[in-house]
Amino acid sequence: MGSKGRSDLSMFFDARSVAIFGSFREWGGLGSGVLENMMKLGYGGRVYPISRSQTEVMGLRTHAAIREVSEAVDLAVVITPRSAVPEIIRECAESGVKAAVIVSEHFAEAGDEGAELQRQLADVARRDGIRIMGPNTIGILNAANGLVTNPYLFDSKKIRQGGIAYCSQTGITGAQCQPLEDRGLGISKMCDIGNKCDVDEVDLLDYLAGDPETSVVAMHLEDVKDGRRFMEAARKLAACKPLVILKSGRSEAGAKASASHTGSLTGNDRIYDHAFRQVGAVRVSEWQEYWDIPKVFATGRLPEGNRIAIVTYSGGAGVVAADVAADVGLVVPGFSSATVEKLSKLSPRSAGNPIDLGPILSSAYEPASTQEEALSAVVSDDNVDCVAIGMYVGPLAPVEYLTDLIDRFMLNVSKPVAFWIYGPKLSIVEEAARQLEARGMPTFTDFETAVRALGKAARYAEFRRSLDNVAV
Amino acid sequence: MGSKGRSDLSMFFDARSVAIFGSFREWGGLGSGVLENMMKLGYGGRVYPISRSQTEVMGLRTHAAIREVSEAVDLAVVITPRSAVPEIIRECAESGVKAAVIVSEHFAEAGDEGAELQRQLADVARRDGIRIMGPNTIGILNAANGLVTNPYLFDSKKIRQGGIAYCSQTGITGAQCQPLEDRGLGISKMCDIGNKCDVDEVDLLDYLAGDPETSVVAMHLEDVKDGRRFMEAARKLAACKPLVILKSGRSEAGAKASASHTGSLTGNDRIYDHAFRQVGAVRVSEWQEYWDIPKVFATGRLPEGNRIAIVTYSGGAGVVAADVAADVGLVVPGFSSATVEKLSKLSPRSAGNPIDLGPILSSAYEPASTQEEALSAVVSDDNVDCVAIGMYVGPLAPVEYLTDLIDRFMLNVSKPVAFWIYGPKLSIVEEAARQLEARGMPTFTDFETAVRALGKAARYAEFRRSLDNVAV
Repeated sequence: MGSKGRSDLSMFFDARSVAIFGSFREWGGLGSGVLENMMKLGYGGRVYPISRSQTEVMGLRTHAAIREVSEAVDLAVVITPRSAVPEIIRECAESGVKAAVIVSEHFAEAGDEGAELQRQLADVARRDGIRIMGPNTIGILNAANGLVTNPYLFDSKKIRQGGIAYCSQTGITGAQCQPLEDRGLGISKMCDIGNKCDVDEVDLLDYLAGDPETSVVAMHLEDVKDGRRFMEAARKLAACKPLVILKSGRSEAGAKASASHTGSLTGNDRIYDHAFRQVGAVRVSEWQEYWDIPKVFATGRLPEGNRIAIVTYSGGAGVVAADVAADVGLVVPGFSSATVEKLSKLSPRSAGNPIDLGPILSSAYEPASTQEEALSAVVSDDNVDCVAIGMYVGPLAPVEYLTDLIDRFMLNVSKPVAFWIYGPKLSIVEEAARQLEARGMPTFTDFETAVRALGKAARYAEFRRSLDNVAV
Repeated sequence: MGSKGRSDLSMFFDARSVAIFGSFREWGGLGSGVLENMMKLGYGGRVYPISRSQTEVMGLRTHAAIREVSEAVDLAVVITPRSAVPEIIRECAESGVKAAVIVSEHFAEAGDEGAELQRQLADVARRDGIRIMGPNTIGILNAANGLVTNPYLFDSKKIRQGGIAYCSQTGITGAQCQPLEDRGLGISKMCDIGNKCDVDEVDLLDYLAGDPETSVVAMHLEDVKDGRRFMEAARKLAACKPLVILKSGRSEAGAKASASHTGSLTGNDRIYDHAFRQVGAVRVSEWQEYWDIPKVFATGRLPEGNRIAIVTYSGGAGVVAADVAADVGLVVPGFSSATVEKLSKLSPRSAGNPIDLGPILSSAYEPASTQEEALSAVVSDDNVDCVAIGMYVGPLAPVEYLTDLIDRFMLNVSKPVAFWIYGPKLSIVEEAARQLEARGMPTFTDFETAVRALGKAARYAEFRRSLDNVAV
């Protein structure tokens, strides 16, 4: 279970037994929702529904109170009206429960009375040592063991295991709202810290810094409770793993909205911006970036410099991508003479960067091998630190053709390569992207985000190199 | 056919007869590709494949040369090796063909020899009066009559007719690469002007300004041939229809890439930016915006001011949306006292803007009617000029539930409302978006783009009001 410091959150993510407080009615019972989601994801721990009115729920025996459970339970999930919560948490603490996710809402975000109840929870946590996540949260998901505290039914049969930890201060990031499976995201853990009466972003940063399953952390924040502690934790994490932050409430309107969402005081955005830069965090400003930018980091590859190769089958897409590369501080160098020579043999007209492989393709006798040669030449070019490739999938190049081709030219490539897959049928594009993600190839829904991700990666790599230089 | 000035492009878009020069072999013949695409879209005009080697193609009798066709054909589509093109165009002009789309490539974009051939084409166009689009283009698509010159097979069975004209200088915007049908885009016409040896962006602007099928123009440009003429035409169009421009080659790297793509000299970007603003064009910088921003204009509704209401079922999404609203110059006002009163009756805690309907929903006895009441109150609030709404679709609220709800609260609403639909299954989200688009509800793949679209609409509306004031 790792070290037992305050920031050890393994009693949440690695809980071997879970008690659920909530409604277990058949339709729309949120306690039943947690159970069903756990079953879907194949959670193998012991689960105890706590209910006075039912003796059995979905094949599980219920207990009327937590003290009647014969073992000391690791984790409680609480989804009751708010007034019942403080007493439940006290009982849990008494019975040796180590941690609780409080899904119930209407606490600090809902006015004075709720704020007072939330203070009571924080007191219990401090006094009795039980750790609390929330209230007003959907809690956690661990892709490795299928543990999930989300009470809202989701369709996913499986969350693909991978290196990205997604942490937020909102429930919309949960599997009930996001096409995690359809997008093929490779996830280690997910976490909604809600109103943060106890567990906060700092605990999470400390825990994830040491989590071997997590190679990159994406974090959505509305506020930071303790700036100094946050800086320390973020600096420690970013020194070993990329940390992507979506800090909202940047504007006055956003800050006002945030106060009524999670009771957060968002603070001056310039200070945040400066702080994030100082600790080496990668800041993003929109949800699509929160989901997508971490993909390029999940490969574990960082560019050795800021030189990008842009490969397209459309000159028009290449020009826009080159503009975005310039926006994010990447340069678009000429290819080395060796590459130019190779490319010139394949086509008299396609040796520039961005390179449009369309003309090569339309004049090649063996398009597949010609493409492979051209792509291999580009991705292994010494002038190039990272590569963005836009590729078509559809009737003229089915999914298997595409994945085979990519497998071949990506063999032995160690620099980061970001893909944009496009085509006339969304279902086919999405299937190709899913298969590429599963192969560890970061795949984006637009070319610009692919390029931006590489720009962020180059900047983070520079930060990491600056640390190494200091260390020397 | 409208007025017969130089900028009348109806001989392209309304051609009643088309001759096709290209390969008609069964597999991969590009001439056959055009034919097949035309059949798919149900083009009802007369089609003449020109071939010396085949007597029949896909049930159509061929002719060995254009002069053997018994009628004066409106439009020629040319997809032959480049060396054959000038002679074909000369023969077409002699035979009374009014216009030609030259798909063939390797002209000005491919060096001196190609540039010389392209000059010859321009000479024929000038001398013999035949209008030429291209070379290096996939030409046009008219959703109203199924006329299409794109030789690359696409999957779409139907392009939905609507008010948006998409014009570009690249082939990747064609139906062979873009999920036009899956996205449910409502399209009037599409056009790739390629190397612009004759027909250029100014002709297109002039033509589309007078096209009754087109209510908004999206234009991708790498360069502008004649700044003064462009300004005049853009000003004229933007005074009556929104003009959304993606001008690429903003950066040095992008400009260099553009030269080898279409032989364009992109020029100083600041000058473009200033010019676009002056004529009232709406500038965007990425492809997703090129496709999506026009949707909000296609409704024909413009906001009367810059006050936005943001409706979510997630506080977290609302905060980010409020930030983006501020970025694009929108304000997020409080609701009027009448609205606050209505909302307060539905839930004690949801009368702010952004409004999170989650709490209302979770406490309502009749969620459907409660949502409808809340949404109706917000969209009809006098303090609000436009509305962005993020809504869930999935197991808990199926497509039909969503569309019915939206139909009800959108009844009698005349201000612009932009939708973001999200959920755990991409196929269901996409189906919902398609159905909403078909009902004239602009639907976006992320909330931020929905808000940005409204910001662009508010700015354009302000421009239009400034014209009215001058006119008075």
